[in-house]
Amino acid sequence: MESGIEKSETLRDTVREFVERKAVTNTILGVIIFNAITLGLSTSPSVQSSIGPALVLIDKIVLGIFVAELLLKFYAYRLSFFNNAWNIFDLVVVTLGLLPNRDGLSALRGLRVIRAMRLLSVIPQMRAVVQALLDALPGMGAVIIMISIVFYVFAVMATLMYGPDFPEWFGSLGKSLYSLFQIMTLESWSMGIVRPVMEVHPTAWIFFVPFIVITAFSVLNLFIGLLVNTMQSAVEDESVEEFSHLRELVRSETDIVDDRVKELLVEVRALRREVAELKGQTDG
Amino acid sequence: MESGIEKSETLRDTVREFVERKAVTNTILGVIIFNAITLGLSTSPSVQSSIGPALVLIDKIVLGIFVAELLLKFYAYRLSFFNNAWNIFDLVVVTLGLLPNRDGLSALRGLRVIRAMRLLSVIPQMRAVVQALLDALPGMGAVIIMISIVFYVFAVMATLMYGPDFPEWFGSLGKSLYSLFQIMTLESWSMGIVRPVMEVHPTAWIFFVPFIVITAFSVLNLFIGLLVNTMQSAVEDESVEEFSHLRELVRSETDIVDDRVKELLVEVRALRREVAELKGQTDG
Amino acid sequence: MESGIEKSETLRDTVREFVERKAVTNTILGVIIFNAITLGLSTSPSVQSSIGPALVLIDKIVLGIFVAELLLKFYAYRLSFFNNAWNIFDLVVVTLGLLPNRDGLSALRGLRVIRAMRLLSVIPQMRAVVQALLDALPGMGAVIIMISIVFYVFAVMATLMYGPDFPEWFGSLGKSLYSLFQIMTLESWSMGIVRPVMEVHPTAWIFFVPFIVITAFSVLNLFIGLLVNTMQSAVEDESVEEFSHLRELVRSETDIVDDRVKELLVEVRALRREVAELKGQTDG
Amino acid sequence: MESGIEKSETLRDTVREFVERKAVTNTILGVIIFNAITLGLSTSPSVQSSIGPALVLIDKIVLGIFVAELLLKFYAYRLSFFNNAWNIFDLVVVTLGLLPNRDGLSALRGLRVIRAMRLLSVIPQMRAVVQALLDALPGMGAVIIMISIVFYVFAVMATLMYGPDFPEWFGSLGKSLYSLFQIMTLESWSMGIVRPVMEVHPTAWIFFVPFIVITAFSVLNLFIGLLVNTMQSAVEDESVEEFSHLRELVRSETDIVDDRVKELLVEVRALRREVAELKGQTDG
Repeated sequence: MESGIEKSETLRDTVREFVERKAVTNTILGVIIFNAITLGLSTSPSVQSSIGPALVLIDKIVLGIFVAELLLKFYAYRLSFFNNAWNIFDLVVVTLGLLPNRDGLSALRGLRVIRAMRLLSVIPQMRAVVQALLDALPGMGAVIIMISIVFYVFAVMATLMYGPDFPEWFGSLGKSLYSLFQIMTLESWSMGIVRPVMEVHPTAWIFFVPFIVITAFSVLNLFIGLLVNTMQSAVEDESVEEFSHLRELVRSETDIVDDRVKELLVEVRALRREVAELKGQTDG
Repeated sequence: MESGIEKSETLRDTVREFVERKAVTNTILGVIIFNAITLGLSTSPSVQSSIGPALVLIDKIVLGIFVAELLLKFYAYRLSFFNNAWNIFDLVVVTLGLLPNRDGLSALRGLRVIRAMRLLSVIPQMRAVVQALLDALPGMGAVIIMISIVFYVFAVMATLMYGPDFPEWFGSLGKSLYSLFQIMTLESWSMGIVRPVMEVHPTAWIFFVPFIVITAFSVLNLFIGLLVNTMQSAVEDESVEEFSHLRELVRSETDIVDDRVKELLVEVRALRREVAELKGQTDG
Repeated sequence: MESGIEKSETLRDTVREFVERKAVTNTILGVIIFNAITLGLSTSPSVQSSIGPALVLIDKIVLGIFVAELLLKFYAYRLSFFNNAWNIFDLVVVTLGLLPNRDGLSALRGLRVIRAMRLLSVIPQMRAVVQALLDALPGMGAVIIMISIVFYVFAVMATLMYGPDFPEWFGSLGKSLYSLFQIMTLESWSMGIVRPVMEVHPTAWIFFVPFIVITAFSVLNLFIGLLVNTMQSAVEDESVEEFSHLRELVRSETDIVDDRVKELLVEVRALRREVAELKGQTDG
Repeated sequence: MESGIEKSETLRDTVREFVERKAVTNTILGVIIFNAITLGLSTSPSVQSSIGPALVLIDKIVLGIFVAELLLKFYAYRLSFFNNAWNIFDLVVVTLGLLPNRDGLSALRGLRVIRAMRLLSVIPQMRAVVQALLDALPGMGAVIIMISIVFYVFAVMATLMYGPDFPEWFGSLGKSLYSLFQIMTLESWSMGIVRPVMEVHPTAWIFFVPFIVITAFSVLNLFIGLLVNTMQSAVEDESVEEFSHLRELVRSETDIVDDRVKELLVEVRALRREVAELKGQTDG
């Protein structure tokens, strides 16, 4: 039994070493890029009609490689596999490709392509960029919640006030949220939505103009907060180093003076001893 | 009488303690969230038809709780109730729910929902975010007044110049202000408004293009001012602390040297005394 | 003769003192605000029909006051009147109100309203804001010229390439410049302009997408340059002061040490003299 | 032979000196500006009909001057001609004017105008601005690649999912990329594209709203990164200088103290010698 466990541990180590090997990760990267290209080619009807079956086969092989890679990784790391957010990301985007792929479900057909997003998880520089984007999120939490509350309240109000007359835009809470998002992006907010609404409810601008001003101002503050945070930590690092150099300099310079004064003190004390001796001689 | 006043003071204190109790504020928060959800549900016709009367009842109970809370607070703090802007906010949004609620006045029906905005006044983190947004306003005052003057003058001009030909957009001062706001947000400004206007007044671009440039540039400066202020105070705090540390260091380091020099001075003076004594001996 | 010149000088001084008097500038400010309101009222047909003639009369009186004010100022400051850019601004906006005001020339009718912009030149805080906006311009000069060159070249190209097929948008250099400005603001650029153009010239996106990217990137850099300048001078002022304090501290602290060391030197030299004397005694 | 090479070298130097002469570069600048104006004039049908042939002649002469200038430069610098990116820029934009110019190829007719972009390469300040824009690019590389991957994946998905129903917008990978670019700029994204798509695929917002949020957030971070970099290097330069001054001051001030202490040390040592002598005397 024990040797069985040992063997399994050895095998696990071998597998771990294998999946972490440079050649293997590079091969996987190559497969991802190759698959990204074949997925792109599969959008062309002419390519589809000439080498369509080949593309389907390639897709199945690539999916097989990805599944094998994930299984090996899961075998190698066991549950600590899930400690790495990128593994979970890979798991999700690969799993989406295993969903049934009927012709009727064109949405699911598209989801399969999300697998090419693995380019972001496999290239280290891309990981760093995505990480930086995600790191910015927590600092934005409170403002995002505030904007969400404002959105929710305005959406409920819009549904109650304008829903009956404009069911297409404000007929339900979901439709109102979508329409308010569109208005926040300023797309056709006036010509497309608010002017028609004002023909029925002439005071509707009292609702929509403040909504635009509030969300624009909130998004602006979100952005300023993000910017100040990034800037501050950048400037801080720089300045902390400069200050630390300066402190070091002040210390070392005063130490030099201090050392010389100490030297002087030794001399003066020696002098006192000599004078004391002299005094003793004279006394004698 | 005196004991009556005392009793009333005691009662006031008890009430104040009660409304400030953690359990009570949490209950109120729970009621607000619950009410926000029921208000959301009331937008759905299917929910409305099945449990509509229950939702109306819940709404009345919640309103009763809010009114009771405000009355207790007002009893507890008396006029200092109005010193807290958040109390005034709560008073206004709750009062809007007491307005008559006829079917014809769908606008008033919607206003009732604004009560869910109390989420912003009850959650401390949300209060902080809103406070930060409001704190940014005074620094923007001068630019906002400037933009308002520009808006007013351009609106009067647009009404006089284009009002007769385009009454829908520039027929009155209010309509012109709204249209100029739309143009400032760049929504359909050219295809929707200025190109049609230019068909009648071919030189209208001399009016609208500078308006867009001026307002865009002003808003940009508003934003830059806001950003520089936020950034400056953030960097300042950091840097002020570093400088104060450095000053402290310079002082303490030179103090060390100074102390040692003082020590030396004591030694030298003692030496002089001894030499003087020696001189006295030799003299003698 | 001499006394005549003196009299005139005295009168000039009196006039200058008069136009600079607080009560006079406040009265002028009051007249401007009053005129801004009457100009606003004159946009309303109902007001126009009831007190129209009164408004016209008020307008003439206000214009008379403004002309009188400018003449007095010009008399008081003579040619140095033109040294102040705000005086030139006032002169221009008041002069525009003297233009013939026929019913047919609705554009000129509107121009008269620009006089209300004097609010910006009379209120000191507004002057400061406008000054700050204008101060930002020189730093933007080079980028603005670059954007102008790009605009000109793209406009000539668009006129030659798309003018024949789309005379309404690109029929002349002026029309192309206007359309490119619209495209730069992203208003209906695709649905309104580029998609229709692509139906005739399928490769038009090679022209328009780079144009959007280049101008967006240039405007972004314009904005960043402006922001960095503002920020830098703000941070600089702060930091220059802190550094100057710190330098002062370093100087004063080392001066204290230096003074004490000097004191020590005096003591040691006195000691040497005494030892020399002692030596003389012993020698003797 | 040798003298032949020498002659050629001398000629090369003369040519180099000639093309670098201030008068020559200014003449070229004048020709570019003149050509920019004639190219602008050639867009006007009335100018075309009156002096069209003259303009064509001018264009040919200008092109001849440019070709001559480039040939001289190429002769003077030989292959190091290609080390300067601006030379390559000039070569490309001039070459575009040599392309066949048939009436049917209106696109090629327009390309000729790009030659006026030489204004950017000839005026030193414009070069500096363009250089600054290009210098900003490398720092944006990683984010731009990330956005490209996101664009590619979303475009493939959109083509597969919405291509069959909306061939005009998502019929091919290229069309999808263009439509997604339009959506990223927020132009008519909802009214023009997503609402029609949602009529067939009601859940399409799950695809488009995240796309907008992700690209907006990425572009925002691109911008913040750019801004922080620019700002940091600006603040750094300033602060590095201040710190270097301060370090210099700390050094010089402590050197003064140190020198005085050294002076003191010399005195004390002299004193010791004298005391030692005194001791010797007393001993004797």
